[in-house]
Amino acid sequence: MEEAPTSAALDRVLAADVLSPSDLPTFRRSTMDGFAVRAADTFGATEGLPAYLDIVDEVFMGRAPTRGLGTGQCARIATGGMLPDNADAVVMVEQTQEVGPTTIEALRAVAPGENVVQIGEDVRTMDPLLTAGQRLRPQDLGGLLALGITSVPVARRLSVGIVSGGDELVAPEREPGPGQIRDVNSYTLAALIRRDGHTPCLAGIFPDDYAALESAAQTALAANDVVILSAGSSVSARDMTAQVVDSLGEPGVLVHGVSLKPGKPTILAVCSGKPVFGLPGNPVSCMVTYDLFVAPTLARLSGATSPPRMSVTARLTRNIASATGREDYIQVRLERRPDGGLDAVPVFGKSNLIFTLIRADGMLKIPLDAGGLPAGAQVEVVLF
Amino acid sequence: MEEAPTSAALDRVLAADVLSPSDLPTFRRSTMDGFAVRAADTFGATEGLPAYLDIVDEVFMGRAPTRGLGTGQCARIATGGMLPDNADAVVMVEQTQEVGPTTIEALRAVAPGENVVQIGEDVRTMDPLLTAGQRLRPQDLGGLLALGITSVPVARRLSVGIVSGGDELVAPEREPGPGQIRDVNSYTLAALIRRDGHTPCLAGIFPDDYAALESAAQTALAANDVVILSAGSSVSARDMTAQVVDSLGEPGVLVHGVSLKPGKPTILAVCSGKPVFGLPGNPVSCMVTYDLFVAPTLARLSGATSPPRMSVTARLTRNIASATGREDYIQVRLERRPDGGLDAVPVFGKSNLIFTLIRADGMLKIPLDAGGLPAGAQVEVVLF
Repeated sequence: MEEAPTSAALDRVLAADVLSPSDLPTFRRSTMDGFAVRAADTFGATEGLPAYLDIVDEVFMGRAPTRGLGTGQCARIATGGMLPDNADAVVMVEQTQEVGPTTIEALRAVAPGENVVQIGEDVRTMDPLLTAGQRLRPQDLGGLLALGITSVPVARRLSVGIVSGGDELVAPEREPGPGQIRDVNSYTLAALIRRDGHTPCLAGIFPDDYAALESAAQTALAANDVVILSAGSSVSARDMTAQVVDSLGEPGVLVHGVSLKPGKPTILAVCSGKPVFGLPGNPVSCMVTYDLFVAPTLARLSGATSPPRMSVTARLTRNIASATGREDYIQVRLERRPDGGLDAVPVFGKSNLIFTLIRADGMLKIPLDAGGLPAGAQVEVVLF
Repeated sequence: MEEAPTSAALDRVLAADVLSPSDLPTFRRSTMDGFAVRAADTFGATEGLPAYLDIVDEVFMGRAPTRGLGTGQCARIATGGMLPDNADAVVMVEQTQEVGPTTIEALRAVAPGENVVQIGEDVRTMDPLLTAGQRLRPQDLGGLLALGITSVPVARRLSVGIVSGGDELVAPEREPGPGQIRDVNSYTLAALIRRDGHTPCLAGIFPDDYAALESAAQTALAANDVVILSAGSSVSARDMTAQVVDSLGEPGVLVHGVSLKPGKPTILAVCSGKPVFGLPGNPVSCMVTYDLFVAPTLARLSGATSPPRMSVTARLTRNIASATGREDYIQVRLERRPDGGLDAVPVFGKSNLIFTLIRADGMLKIPLDAGGLPAGAQVEVVLF
């Protein structure tokens, strides 16, 4: 938890409940241009039989009125102006007629409180304003500043170390040789982490070598709050990742392999009190497992209560098969139907193809106990 | 338009179409741990009558195989490994049995191409990758970097000047005197602009004085791409805003007043080739009109094709009345129903109450020609 200037706290997670330190507004304000009146003086007024009122003051914006109203008196006032003492309503200028330099006719009766915002009508002293765990939106900042709250307690941004492993990986700016590919996952992960409001720290690319990987992982664990190992794609590379993770601290690997497609070889661990993830090397698996395991962990560690991703309801356009006993995540493209609803069109592709993700707008889940989903089903699509 | 490093281009708007400079992958890759084979050598193989193959090589990750395969030969290969010449499929290790140091039994036939990603299967040279106007997502950055595209053309962030007018306004850090309120709109607008990917520039708070406001607006127009005047709330302050805007350059005010609630006194203008907005002083009106007029203008100027705000479908919980001939925007809170759908619960409140916005999750539109919306109607809620 740390304090941030409210004006710079957009999208930060609030770390404590905020109560209102005062009433808002602090004075009775007019919501119309017109005349502040004592409502009782206008009772029964009509166009045929108007109420005559003496103009005794003009209320200037940003200043207190110079005097209160006596019976039969009124004061010129603009929208946002402060009501004089004894005034309890405002007659709109359109419903008055000036019949002399200091006299108006009120052509309509107003009720007490009409065209007036009362003290504390927006918010009262000690009202709960915002709740710990919320992500601060533009209007939340506006509301805080309206009450003079110029700094707020927010969750610290987490530092997330990313260690990439794989003999086949080269940095994006290098030309890959035969059998080599560019490292994609580190940068996709870094952007996902940044989008979630945290700070990625790229440790670099390491070969499938136990000592090199272990040393990189140890350094990353010491320097960060959370560590992700983006493992090589072969079974032996993944086994090595699990061993490395297990060596980082107690209790070590908690889960190795989940009943999930894509993303089966995911490793979930806690080492010396810090979450450590071994994510699969395939780009699609890597992103799906980030969303399923890492994003909620980062949100939980920050105390965020809102889901990290938006989701929308859509209609599936075709049957999808799935094995029961396994959760499947299917990439889909969303298309707007003429009736305004959304269609979810599956984007098929092997989980080692990055462009499956790029052609998709989100993913949908086929639950563990379902053998698939029929065309026409209403599905929840989590947006990328 | 400017070039940005791809790894730092999250959420930027792409300024030109991007075509693939090369195939991805550039070599045939195995999707399994196992043995690269000539598929024809496995035809008819079963557990009872396996195909015998000689192991002549081991493909190391990140390197080219040292030799091609002859008839009856295979090479050990891991997921992501490069296929040897003449190999056209991979037998999964689980479907083989090692019967000697250099011999395996393949217990199942594989088809040509099985367990292999072909050259260009992810993307082909000159394939369209991403389209001008897209906002770059994490996986888009990953895809670009996979192809070695380390910098991308993006739309320049627009600089938006914000001039606040009103005798009643004081800065948030000051204690308001009688009749004064803190400036809320400048900071809400600044956060909205930042969320939309642009750069707000707060010019400060100016009194309802023509010369002061005009000079501030001129300075803001010279220094920014777009200017917003957040006007005082009285009619005379709004009229002064319109005069100031009109004085800034040709053609000046295009629209003064829109058939909209809240937001009626909105001013739309173009001055010397730059968009200028006069937004109402009430916080709700200010935010609604930003979303309706300013956000789409900024998106259009950047060439962004995606809508600036997400929307969801929800079911209205109660009747809402509206005048025909006017578009109404109603703030709503979203509540998840037990059936998984969303309910839209109207949050009523005067448009000069900032906390109406804070208690709401989004807004829905009642169209110009509708007299209202009935409870139970499916509505589109634009999220804040």
